[in-house]
Amino acid sequence: MHNILLIGAGKSTSSLIDYFKRKAEVENLHVTIIDRNLDLARKIVGNNERFELKNIDIFDEQLRYDAIKNCDIVISMLPARFHLPVAKDALALGKHMITASYISKELKDLEPEIKQKGLVFMNEIGLDPGIDHMSAMRVIDHIKNSGAQMILFESFTGGLVAPESDDNLWHYKFTWNPRNVVVAGQGGVAQFLHAGQYKYIPYHKLFRRTEFLEIDGYGRFEGYPNRDSLKYQSIYGLEEATTMYRGTMRRVGFSRAWNVFVQLGMTDDTYTIEASENMTKRDFVNAFLPFSPTDSVELKLRQYLKIDQDDELWLKLEELDLFDGETRIGIKNATPAQMLQKILEDKWTLKPDDKDMIVMYHKFGYKMNGEHKQIDSQLVVKGDDQIYTAMAKTVGLPVAIATIKILKGEIKTPGVHLPITSEVYTPILKELKEYGVVFNENEVPFQCYNPNAVAG
Amino acid sequence: MHNILLIGAGKSTSSLIDYFKRKAEVENLHVTIIDRNLDLARKIVGNNERFELKNIDIFDEQLRYDAIKNCDIVISMLPARFHLPVAKDALALGKHMITASYISKELKDLEPEIKQKGLVFMNEIGLDPGIDHMSAMRVIDHIKNSGAQMILFESFTGGLVAPESDDNLWHYKFTWNPRNVVVAGQGGVAQFLHAGQYKYIPYHKLFRRTEFLEIDGYGRFEGYPNRDSLKYQSIYGLEEATTMYRGTMRRVGFSRAWNVFVQLGMTDDTYTIEASENMTKRDFVNAFLPFSPTDSVELKLRQYLKIDQDDELWLKLEELDLFDGETRIGIKNATPAQMLQKILEDKWTLKPDDKDMIVMYHKFGYKMNGEHKQIDSQLVVKGDDQIYTAMAKTVGLPVAIATIKILKGEIKTPGVHLPITSEVYTPILKELKEYGVVFNENEVPFQCYNPNAVAG
Repeated sequence: MHNILLIGAGKSTSSLIDYFKRKAEVENLHVTIIDRNLDLARKIVGNNERFELKNIDIFDEQLRYDAIKNCDIVISMLPARFHLPVAKDALALGKHMITASYISKELKDLEPEIKQKGLVFMNEIGLDPGIDHMSAMRVIDHIKNSGAQMILFESFTGGLVAPESDDNLWHYKFTWNPRNVVVAGQGGVAQFLHAGQYKYIPYHKLFRRTEFLEIDGYGRFEGYPNRDSLKYQSIYGLEEATTMYRGTMRRVGFSRAWNVFVQLGMTDDTYTIEASENMTKRDFVNAFLPFSPTDSVELKLRQYLKIDQDDELWLKLEELDLFDGETRIGIKNATPAQMLQKILEDKWTLKPDDKDMIVMYHKFGYKMNGEHKQIDSQLVVKGDDQIYTAMAKTVGLPVAIATIKILKGEIKTPGVHLPITSEVYTPILKELKEYGVVFNENEVPFQCYNPNAVAG
Repeated sequence: MHNILLIGAGKSTSSLIDYFKRKAEVENLHVTIIDRNLDLARKIVGNNERFELKNIDIFDEQLRYDAIKNCDIVISMLPARFHLPVAKDALALGKHMITASYISKELKDLEPEIKQKGLVFMNEIGLDPGIDHMSAMRVIDHIKNSGAQMILFESFTGGLVAPESDDNLWHYKFTWNPRNVVVAGQGGVAQFLHAGQYKYIPYHKLFRRTEFLEIDGYGRFEGYPNRDSLKYQSIYGLEEATTMYRGTMRRVGFSRAWNVFVQLGMTDDTYTIEASENMTKRDFVNAFLPFSPTDSVELKLRQYLKIDQDDELWLKLEELDLFDGETRIGIKNATPAQMLQKILEDKWTLKPDDKDMIVMYHKFGYKMNGEHKQIDSQLVVKGDDQIYTAMAKTVGLPVAIATIKILKGEIKTPGVHLPITSEVYTPILKELKEYGVVFNENEVPFQCYNPNAVAG
């Protein structure tokens, strides 16, 4: 019998739990799930003796330790900053561990001991990071093994609303932690490498440096750069590449309108606004505009950001009732980012029948026999419903598959890993296909730059 | 005999030292000056037995302690972060102390003990902070004492080049630490109160929210808000005021052109640029622009920031040779701010015969007998030459005058102070007049807002 411990049973674990349920008999699993809120897990598992659901405070270190003692492998779906104490317990007790989060320096420091004990600590094995690593490395290894030289790598991921549920002008709904969406891109300059040149974009220009991307059958999207584009150059073995770019995807027009919030200062999470609890949306907008005894908030905003009266982005702002002077937003001691989040949550929450959609787009440029070539790889995954969302599937399934493969010794190299070796990505990508995670790969003409880049 | 210890003899201490030299006999002074570089002090003092110049590392705590032991009052002209250890020594040894820097929380925490020992620790008594506090409080107290109610306070200060030495399109030269000029406005949102409304301006919009100010005989200037406008509302006793605004003055057009640097990301001091030592100015500009296999840096910049080809601000950029692709800037592991500083220092350094100029502008709005009234107060001080600059005079003279008044017991209220009480500002402002620090005060029609504000 394989004993699995799942710490945390939030929204993104539905497909993960469902996978274990379907594999429980054939793989002889016993799954313990701990969390304060077990509603979702109970709904999925139903009456099943192979599952044990324990109402435990997952931030209680002693209770957590006791739970880890009785398992063979720990899956931590805690917020990233709580992984380290779990990892230390798992190491002390000699258990494998899996997370969908980025590898921290502190975790990497434990690697010698983890290796010594023959344990596998697999991380970054959700969607992004996760499926992006695996699908990219499969192609990169293929290109390199064919004797070619990688010269360009670009990768974009987006969590969006499916076209059939897309009913707002932003073509966006929250399928992920709204706070992360509001503060996305903050905390440092965006750096990347383009045709051998290092490029730097400050936060306030991020949403004006988009480029267009076409996904077959889904039309046009836009991408803006992440902060960490250079980090994976050495991890992916792309030291020779002269273009390295990782970005986030949105529907066309989102970034240009989002830039209004950035320019006003509404995404700032570092200070609180005076008397925020009394503010209407109109007051909130006005706090970022010059005082005038006569001019309207609307006119001041148009003039300040040079928005034409018939600009389509104005309709996006109106759709959010941004100039409503009646209703209070109603949060005390709020930062601008918290106020904005509340405004957006009222409009961008998925309805019961809405479906979400994940899109991913990789570009691989390489040189073979003196010729420049390019492969584009595209993925679209749609959610089934509000429980089995595309986000839950793409985050949870790789974690679930990896769990079984580690338990069965099919993934066995000890250490602190992310899924970039064939031992890991080949079997997992193969099985993911059964769940509709299928990349569409095509040879296209090489482009050392994107002619559809939109600047300014 | 009064024993004065001056720690630090940099550029801004010339008028301070000169004042003591002129008062040495009549006030019976003995002045010890310590610093590693005593060239300036020696040049001013000459052969004078009332002065002792000691070549001491002013960051050596033991040597500093020994020096403090032998004086009656310490003047610390160290960088602000070094005041606290000096203050602790002065307190332990029972000496008065003076700085031209903002009062830190840590210094304020020492106040009970400082009061107990009957010591005066006077701070913020240079130009800004300093002369601004004194000149503002004199008028505020006058207005309040006449039974009126203060409703508006705005205050602007600028360190600029005098018109007769103004020979560049930016109408600006460095008269102050260049680094502080490059990073000015960073580190937090600018907050102020305008006609009862709290207003917030993010850094990337700061230089587009200027307003015009006319100074009699000197034409038009522009002002942009400081970060700390609200801080002095309680200190000045202006709780009832509905407008509180403190800002920085430049010549018209400076901010609009400076905004190009801000928008590009050139003022960022938080990360270093790859291979910065090899970069020309042109490379530096290009690092913030999209890659193109064909378009020029000039065209990309114009398109990115929407600058017309005949826009006068383009000439300002050209004047800095910003598109020079030949000469390397030549700094290793440099932040963008360090690169920009080097570019500007090559162009904006005062020439031997250049004169600098300080401008200050206060607006006081008040209500008397149901009527709205306003007093505007303006100051212009020009430097004599490169040694007795306007900056050195306005920073050093208030410090020097306060030193003598504390030694003579004319300023005697113990505690950690800034110069906001009549005991301090009345005698000091009176004496400053002899040195040309004269405010021009006029009643003007009341304006609850500035019709010359320029937004967007």
